[in-house]
Amino acid sequence: MTARTSSAALIGAAFAASVVYAVSAQQGDGPRYAPGTSNLLRPADYREWIFVGSSLGLDYRAAASGQAPGFGNVFVNPSSYRAFMQTGKWPDKTTFVLEFRASGKETIADREGRFQTTLSGLEAEVKDSRFPDGWGFFLFNNPDAATKGSPPLTGDTVQRCIDCHTKNTAVERTFVQFYPTLFDVAKKMGTVKANYGEP
Amino acid sequence: MTARTSSAALIGAAFAASVVYAVSAQQGDGPRYAPGTSNLLRPADYREWIFVGSSLGLDYRAAASGQAPGFGNVFVNPSSYRAFMQTGKWPDKTTFVLEFRASGKETIADREGRFQTTLSGLEAEVKDSRFPDGWGFFLFNNPDAATKGSPPLTGDTVQRCIDCHTKNTAVERTFVQFYPTLFDVAKKMGTVKANYGEP
Repeated sequence: MTARTSSAALIGAAFAASVVYAVSAQQGDGPRYAPGTSNLLRPADYREWIFVGSSLGLDYRAAASGQAPGFGNVFVNPSSYRAFMQTGKWPDKTTFVLEFRASGKETIADREGRFQTTLSGLEAEVKDSRFPDGWGFFLFNNPDAATKGSPPLTGDTVQRCIDCHTKNTAVERTFVQFYPTLFDVAKKMGTVKANYGEP
Repeated sequence: MTARTSSAALIGAAFAASVVYAVSAQQGDGPRYAPGTSNLLRPADYREWIFVGSSLGLDYRAAASGQAPGFGNVFVNPSSYRAFMQTGKWPDKTTFVLEFRASGKETIADREGRFQTTLSGLEAEVKDSRFPDGWGFFLFNNPDAATKGSPPLTGDTVQRCIDCHTKNTAVERTFVQFYPTLFDVAKKMGTVKANYGEP
């Protein structure tokens, strides 16, 4: 958002409503954990976060025979997005939500394409110094994830996350090579990993 | 964003900065035209708007032989998104940006998928009572679209837009059937067109 302002708009009831919105948007968009735990609460508002990229067929689950490819949408919390656009780096508390959706097929004129349909999975990756590795990985596959949170993955499971997010990522532990507007910034800021080869 | 608040957070310098942000986000996110015209200025910040859906291969340009399918990302201005989530209808001044991106190919494990790369086109659809039809359609293919704007499409060209956006859309003149979180709201609110058949 651009930082335009209007003195007239700073007065009145609409103003108060905007303030509440702004404070929550600016200061409350990092990870929230269930009290006393590192169980990440499923963010209620991630669809209003910043969209950084979408892919088709790149989910890493086992492919069922004949199954249509799924979309993956990636969202990041707004304050961390803004920090990245300035620096090419992710601040502590950066939260990514990866949303999987099934795809439908439609034909317009002579072209057949795919669009997004039902939710098929929801995961998160959080940069947080509370985790031994500095990053936590989460699956929101428990129905009470919004209120009780989901525990960070551990053991061999998280090791697979870490290995892939170490070996195949362009910036830190993140697939910035798939987020074109961010990749441009990382290249400009010199934060692409030295050993990274473009896809 | 949820409407959480904190009295402590309402004081101090961060507060002032948030107010500026909030006013611009809440009240300044509708269409902006070059003075005295209906030429739409290319929104500088549409990538921070609300993402509603992505498709692959559904662009309506002529397909070049052997060309990889392109992605289409759709963003809507935040205040209109919030209105739609409450009502299932688009308020006047709703602005959609349709961003086309080329796709790259990557293989993870045994699955081949596509991710988004370079920008290949940018268009807009605006609900605005200033247009005879109530909706304007724009191509941002002029390099000075950010400062001088792009004129609304006219004549046979816009008629094709209108015909397709009348015949094939689920809600008003918009392809809400391809935006799954919005489609759910429209069905709940009863704003899906009576003659619409689900894709």
